Amino acid sequence: MSRITVDVPLRWSDIDAYSHVNNAELLRILEEARIQAFWVSGDPQRASTAILEATPGAGTATLIARLEIEYLAPIAYQRQPLRVQMWLSHLGGASLDLCYEVYDHSESELYARALTTVVMADAVTQKPRRITPEERRAWEPFLGEAPAFRRR
Amino acid sequence: MSRITVDVPLRWSDIDAYSHVNNAELLRILEEARIQAFWVSGDPQRASTAILEATPGAGTATLIARLEIEYLAPIAYQRQPLRVQMWLSHLGGASLDLCYEVYDHSESELYARALTTVVMADAVTQKPRRITPEERRAWEPFLGEAPAFRRR
Amino acid sequence: MSRITVDVPLRWSDIDAYSHVNNAELLRILEEARIQAFWVSGDPQRASTAILEATPGAGTATLIARLEIEYLAPIAYQRQPLRVQMWLSHLGGASLDLCYEVYDHSESELYARALTTVVMADAVTQKPRRITPEERRAWEPFLGEAPAFRRR
Amino acid sequence: MSRITVDVPLRWSDIDAYSHVNNAELLRILEEARIQAFWVSGDPQRASTAILEATPGAGTATLIARLEIEYLAPIAYQRQPLRVQMWLSHLGGASLDLCYEVYDHSESELYARALTTVVMADAVTQKPRRITPEERRAWEPFLGEAPAFRRR
Repeated sequence: MSRITVDVPLRWSDIDAYSHVNNAELLRILEEARIQAFWVSGDPQRASTAILEATPGAGTATLIARLEIEYLAPIAYQRQPLRVQMWLSHLGGASLDLCYEVYDHSESELYARALTTVVMADAVTQKPRRITPEERRAWEPFLGEAPAFRRR
Repeated sequence: MSRITVDVPLRWSDIDAYSHVNNAELLRILEEARIQAFWVSGDPQRASTAILEATPGAGTATLIARLEIEYLAPIAYQRQPLRVQMWLSHLGGASLDLCYEVYDHSESELYARALTTVVMADAVTQKPRRITPEERRAWEPFLGEAPAFRRR
Repeated sequence: MSRITVDVPLRWSDIDAYSHVNNAELLRILEEARIQAFWVSGDPQRASTAILEATPGAGTATLIARLEIEYLAPIAYQRQPLRVQMWLSHLGGASLDLCYEVYDHSESELYARALTTVVMADAVTQKPRRITPEERRAWEPFLGEAPAFRRR
Repeated sequence: MSRITVDVPLRWSDIDAYSHVNNAELLRILEEARIQAFWVSGDPQRASTAILEATPGAGTATLIARLEIEYLAPIAYQRQPLRVQMWLSHLGGASLDLCYEVYDHSESELYARALTTVVMADAVTQKPRRITPEERRAWEPFLGEAPAFRRR
């Protein structure tokens, strides 16, 4: 199974009074990973999946409809970026399920696994819009199994 | 079923460039609701569930092991606080499942439903510690059904 | 000298790994104080200065051109809101200098003093626009001396 | 005059509802720049100034006593990191004045200039501690003029 791998540097402010990355703040790390993986940038080395025009003023807004995350180990402050692996467990008409595993930089410790349902929306009307054939072609190679969450 | 109801004011910085409350930031709202519901304060009108000594330096740290959230409607900036209703769907040996519904202040619109698994831990060792009989007595009246999430 | 007094609750996430309110986060507290003091709300008990239509979509954007702050004492986590006193040290053609003192809720400890230069701008063009006579009348009663900063 | 130059990537969450980097959030960018410039990391290519053991659990805490910043132009969202240039305008017994200029990545636009007074403190007692001879040697090459702020 192919994965999209992205490095996201921590910020000092991600650490809370318990001295590890705050659980809400980790979602910002996922947000940054998602942007690097899917949004167009000027970077010629961008991932093949990075084809969305989603910056302010662009045509597409990516909305989060659902999120599930398991925190497996506390994340201490570290100067090396976290490594986030991503893949898709579902590619629907206007939405997709994006899966994440969050590791330290050397991938020796798995900190969290997560899944977000992302809806493609028109930036002006905020209504869902269909995934285009071009998007489908770029993203299909990364389809795989959803993480096995330990739900009650 | 009994619920704990708490008001959480928005901050301007909760709003992102899409002009509604950012999905990660909403978890901070849940965090604040949880603190008001469960942590001891000097306020004589505190909820009957607010018995945890969990501020910095206290004996207990509350760790989030798992989170699930459904975003049902975008939350526009509003000056009135959001209203968060909470209840428990599970009360285990050292952890509990806390359920949330997030409404506008008049409870006319449901914005999100969520569930977090919270582990009671020793603040120094960060190891789980058992829920005490006193805690169990205070929290049992708020046991109820988990939200019906639309999982794929 | 008249002052505008506003209470701003802390959030747990304002606390950083040094276990007190982060210096950047304190500016969010000032931001919230400023909004309560100057932006129109539906609240009938609003301050007499709260006449700006500045929420998303409104005509006015308030831009910060300059900021100066002295941190006098670390701010520990507290459940009672901080108390922020505000006044104006300058009321110009399109901008004003807003002064702040940040206290604990009982006003027994002064944590910080600050000054921000706020520019009234057209929300669409982001160009400065003149302070109106109505605004001037509402804000003039709060003119006073700037804080005596200990600059090098 | 020698300067320390550091790149700091933006996060999507730095952008507020006015669609540019929030003024408080820009202080986080300065915080990250400061950490890269002064804190020890495992990176062999670190700046010669990066000699402080200041991470959680280390001996030194760096406290901000004073901050002054001028926002010269709004910062739009950009995928390329901001470029922050730093130098010292004062090197005292236990504190230093750190100056910043914040640019876009190509240094074609100056967004802000700032100065923070940083106090070296003992991480446990939070009391100021003297700057060591080793620190003085590492930092003296970057002494220069303070920015010319447009104070009223």
